Amino acid sequence: MFQIAVIGFGYWGPNLVRNFMAFPGAHVKYVCDRDPIRLSRAKALYPLISTNYLLDDVLNDPSVDAVCIATPVHTHYEIAMSALVAGKHVFVEKPITNNSDLAVKLIDEAEHRNLILMVDHTFVYTGAVRKIHEIVNETNFGKIQYYDSTRVNLGIFQQDVNVLWDLAVHDLSIMLFILDDKPLCVSATGLSLAPGRPEYAAFLTVFFENSIAHINVNWLSPVKIRRTLVGGSGKMIVFDDLESSEKVKIYDKGVSLSEDPDEVHKLLISYRLGDMIAPKLEENEALASAVSHFIACIEKNEKPLSSGKVGLEIVRILEAADKSLSLKGSPIEL
Amino acid sequence: MFQIAVIGFGYWGPNLVRNFMAFPGAHVKYVCDRDPIRLSRAKALYPLISTNYLLDDVLNDPSVDAVCIATPVHTHYEIAMSALVAGKHVFVEKPITNNSDLAVKLIDEAEHRNLILMVDHTFVYTGAVRKIHEIVNETNFGKIQYYDSTRVNLGIFQQDVNVLWDLAVHDLSIMLFILDDKPLCVSATGLSLAPGRPEYAAFLTVFFENSIAHINVNWLSPVKIRRTLVGGSGKMIVFDDLESSEKVKIYDKGVSLSEDPDEVHKLLISYRLGDMIAPKLEENEALASAVSHFIACIEKNEKPLSSGKVGLEIVRILEAADKSLSLKGSPIEL
Amino acid sequence: MFQIAVIGFGYWGPNLVRNFMAFPGAHVKYVCDRDPIRLSRAKALYPLISTNYLLDDVLNDPSVDAVCIATPVHTHYEIAMSALVAGKHVFVEKPITNNSDLAVKLIDEAEHRNLILMVDHTFVYTGAVRKIHEIVNETNFGKIQYYDSTRVNLGIFQQDVNVLWDLAVHDLSIMLFILDDKPLCVSATGLSLAPGRPEYAAFLTVFFENSIAHINVNWLSPVKIRRTLVGGSGKMIVFDDLESSEKVKIYDKGVSLSEDPDEVHKLLISYRLGDMIAPKLEENEALASAVSHFIACIEKNEKPLSSGKVGLEIVRILEAADKSLSLKGSPIEL
Amino acid sequence: MFQIAVIGFGYWGPNLVRNFMAFPGAHVKYVCDRDPIRLSRAKALYPLISTNYLLDDVLNDPSVDAVCIATPVHTHYEIAMSALVAGKHVFVEKPITNNSDLAVKLIDEAEHRNLILMVDHTFVYTGAVRKIHEIVNETNFGKIQYYDSTRVNLGIFQQDVNVLWDLAVHDLSIMLFILDDKPLCVSATGLSLAPGRPEYAAFLTVFFENSIAHINVNWLSPVKIRRTLVGGSGKMIVFDDLESSEKVKIYDKGVSLSEDPDEVHKLLISYRLGDMIAPKLEENEALASAVSHFIACIEKNEKPLSSGKVGLEIVRILEAADKSLSLKGSPIEL
Repeated sequence: MFQIAVIGFGYWGPNLVRNFMAFPGAHVKYVCDRDPIRLSRAKALYPLISTNYLLDDVLNDPSVDAVCIATPVHTHYEIAMSALVAGKHVFVEKPITNNSDLAVKLIDEAEHRNLILMVDHTFVYTGAVRKIHEIVNETNFGKIQYYDSTRVNLGIFQQDVNVLWDLAVHDLSIMLFILDDKPLCVSATGLSLAPGRPEYAAFLTVFFENSIAHINVNWLSPVKIRRTLVGGSGKMIVFDDLESSEKVKIYDKGVSLSEDPDEVHKLLISYRLGDMIAPKLEENEALASAVSHFIACIEKNEKPLSSGKVGLEIVRILEAADKSLSLKGSPIEL
Repeated sequence: MFQIAVIGFGYWGPNLVRNFMAFPGAHVKYVCDRDPIRLSRAKALYPLISTNYLLDDVLNDPSVDAVCIATPVHTHYEIAMSALVAGKHVFVEKPITNNSDLAVKLIDEAEHRNLILMVDHTFVYTGAVRKIHEIVNETNFGKIQYYDSTRVNLGIFQQDVNVLWDLAVHDLSIMLFILDDKPLCVSATGLSLAPGRPEYAAFLTVFFENSIAHINVNWLSPVKIRRTLVGGSGKMIVFDDLESSEKVKIYDKGVSLSEDPDEVHKLLISYRLGDMIAPKLEENEALASAVSHFIACIEKNEKPLSSGKVGLEIVRILEAADKSLSLKGSPIEL
Repeated sequence: MFQIAVIGFGYWGPNLVRNFMAFPGAHVKYVCDRDPIRLSRAKALYPLISTNYLLDDVLNDPSVDAVCIATPVHTHYEIAMSALVAGKHVFVEKPITNNSDLAVKLIDEAEHRNLILMVDHTFVYTGAVRKIHEIVNETNFGKIQYYDSTRVNLGIFQQDVNVLWDLAVHDLSIMLFILDDKPLCVSATGLSLAPGRPEYAAFLTVFFENSIAHINVNWLSPVKIRRTLVGGSGKMIVFDDLESSEKVKIYDKGVSLSEDPDEVHKLLISYRLGDMIAPKLEENEALASAVSHFIACIEKNEKPLSSGKVGLEIVRILEAADKSLSLKGSPIEL
Repeated sequence: MFQIAVIGFGYWGPNLVRNFMAFPGAHVKYVCDRDPIRLSRAKALYPLISTNYLLDDVLNDPSVDAVCIATPVHTHYEIAMSALVAGKHVFVEKPITNNSDLAVKLIDEAEHRNLILMVDHTFVYTGAVRKIHEIVNETNFGKIQYYDSTRVNLGIFQQDVNVLWDLAVHDLSIMLFILDDKPLCVSATGLSLAPGRPEYAAFLTVFFENSIAHINVNWLSPVKIRRTLVGGSGKMIVFDDLESSEKVKIYDKGVSLSEDPDEVHKLLISYRLGDMIAPKLEENEALASAVSHFIACIEKNEKPLSSGKVGLEIVRILEAADKSLSLKGSPIEL
């Protein structure tokens, strides 16, 4: 039986506890949070979980195998590092840290101690994104040309990070999973409610070696939109996460470029338009898959799909995006 | 009876002819086009229109009051200038020219000869955009914070301009109409099918003095999207031009920023969420309103809403966007 | 060159004229209407069409090959019969007549004179309905179980017929085309604004030998809905005529019934849920296909898909529905 | 502290337990179910609830105030009657019983013992239906003309009742709540997978004194639809329960009937089309409101909104509908 401690019982922590509790072979032994109201809520739901221990005590309990961290971003590093030093595997919410240097230290520490360090990039464990990954890698999808995502809603303002660190992380994790391309440079623009405040809306372009990605995130949209277009030379995908039954649609619409050598100024485009297919998707909860993957990685001592290294790559893109934001879109090399 | 000559009978020309023909007090006397098939199509639809005259002959006919230009962008200047020199009022498709210097020359010529020069920024004549303009200027809308538009579809590749000059023009004309704010700087990124080709997808940020606008345009999207969000401190608008009956939705959701002086790190946001209203819109065809406005401006010798000057301002933004595109998003002052 | 006379230039007549004019090899020689304003509108659009002749004169012109009737339903019989007697082929709007006895007379007259009598059941000429017909006849669709259609909007009240005769006709023509099943009995309910008025909303069930159809029509709905579900034992179809790009969706969801002989009370249902496919549809205008089909039937002396006989079958169902309506749903045998 | 026993822990029982547990002042003391797997699931979620007692023992515990019944419909009567006889208040899932005579007995028993008998018609406790009730009772809504509901999906086949008893109950409870009109007669048609099986799709018309209601329910639809139109002479409502943020839309579109005495055949209809408003709705969970209402009724000894009597009225409509179903739509008086 894997013994788990969950640190942080705010917005996401209850989902972690529920999923680890539901996983056969895992048990949540501790929940820690500074807020006594949250702790009493945890206790009411799960009377058998201990909620009256401090983090240090929990880390000193040798029966604890892994620590799950669902606290504000700026606290991730300290808690994760303490857990690794105490010999615990770590499952940390996204983004891994608010700083790439600290992410490097966590990766090194985990490697050195042969512990699993996994970031909860939940989307890569959804049936939808797994299906997109599969389609994009089929030969008739062709070459990926662009990834264009809109992820806006009337959301909770984070206080320690801007909207890119909160929402764009999801798209960056999806992109790095499906694109198989090297990010080279970013350009970002955005706006905040007042000078010096974190941006609540931002527009990020990531230039890859062979493609381009654009992400539009906004905490102050009157409507919720979760739509991603993936354009390939053979097919195109629309991923709408708010659709109940047809989240992923594959369009047999590609464009082929043919060039008549005699007419250099003429661009010949032939469209092919065919059927649309909305494939059946796995319907399990993504977080349940992530939890199962984490435990499997520990058991087999394998690197997780959403490893610390992937988490680091995302933080590096976010740091560059922040710099570009402050320079009104100036390109920043990665 | 106003006598009109329509130059160009390709995609948009037939709509111009139909609307001028339907306008009481106007008559299309000539249609010119280099393509004899298009001319015979015009003749079949309108047997009384003359289609066998060259542009020069048409301009020499003193009974012609105005010339409507619906030809490729790179030909706008030459045709419009000849028409103005011949003393004709000019109604030209967007964008006014492919070059701001040439636009300046047209504006000067029209002013000097006291002729009307109007650009067909059709959207500002729609019931939807007029209603948005009205709402945004009501006091309870508050301060405009952002304009965010997505205008993508599987479209016809233009051969002489990139997608910004084709699609973003619509948003730029709407923005300049409703924002009442001064554009200062732009940042743009995009991608083309091959190096040196015009961009088929582009992402443009326009920094205004008091707000920000973002435009996402794409000729290679598997689905058609026409959605604009306008965020204000008091209300927010969603304009979806593909909705049949509720194109404009006004959300009583604003955000007010309050700051507790004692807790400088804490951002207090209070949302107000209320009803949504989809107001009844005028249902007339926008082009019919534009045609009527053009003739009224001639009769009253008034400056059109979509004047040559507005057309010039848009071309200047597009030129800056092109420069930024070639510099991967580097900001370009206007 | 087929010479056509179009009788009635109200709501639908202009579409007939436009489509016959666009058909190579056909020419509209006359348009008749009692309303001089409509006639002047026709003349303005088509200066070469004669609009100043009475129906009798038109029927006496031996150069006229066919007569198209787009007048109110109660006038169909008289005009169609005069045209047939004068030796003209007839293309008549739906429903063929307001009375099955009169429809029989038209069919007999056309047969006796070897003339084509075609009813404009436009829907059976759409790409969508043709595709549905194709799918339903593939073996993996299984047995058709139900046809369930909602066709409501804020519509024009017809003055001489109720909503079934106006809107349900479309569904009856689609059903008879795709179901290949024999209608046995109907039950209908509905409501009108005042006693004795024609029903503005009605709910019709048609019992077939092997399936059932249900049609919900309403002239007083705040929203427009055009949605048809076709349930088969192997697949299911959703046809939404208001969708711009994916009107027909085929769901690989069937239900198979297995019965355990030992447990007679237990119903074992196993669902199969798979992919959804939205096939590419022909995009031509349905009325253009209908016009082309009409002329081809005349040329080859073949029976049209939407023959007078099909029109009669629909009128018989409508008559039975009216009787059931007045008896609050009592079943009426066909 | 109210002590509750929940009987049945299948599909809906867990929701009842969760909501009673979350209600301050209530506690679930027992969960009963014949299935040991379900009991162990209950125990795992709520270690403090007793799951190893039989119904009789539970009813003999004087500390139990109320019994909640979430078992198959055919068992409702027996359990509810035992609970009432034991002096417990009863909260029973819809429909109250599968037979109106038994419902009468429950109502009499509860009245005689002065106990609360409430049926879980959850929808009347939703923010959406409460808002509709409010709007319909405002004077500018005018006279209600029709209620038209579609409630279809790929659902679980009930084994002891047909689809009307499962899905149409929801609409009947909403109708009786908002219509304030007397049901007089019903007509129903439907279809089953094989003769003698319960109907999986059914179409029900209920004739009221002043209006009409139509309900379309189906367990074998490829798509889920939950849409209700409510037509009034002044306004119209669309209630789409699957919309995330705008479930209720009010259209300022009415129809007024004026009659010119000179033209008896002419029906003059003038439409008024205005704005659409989607009002803000209460967002609490409906079942939480129902639970709170049940406890308040016990405390104040008041009749619940969804009383046994309302449950009986619904069962009488369902019984008449079943009779009409077997007679292919023949009207059955209530």
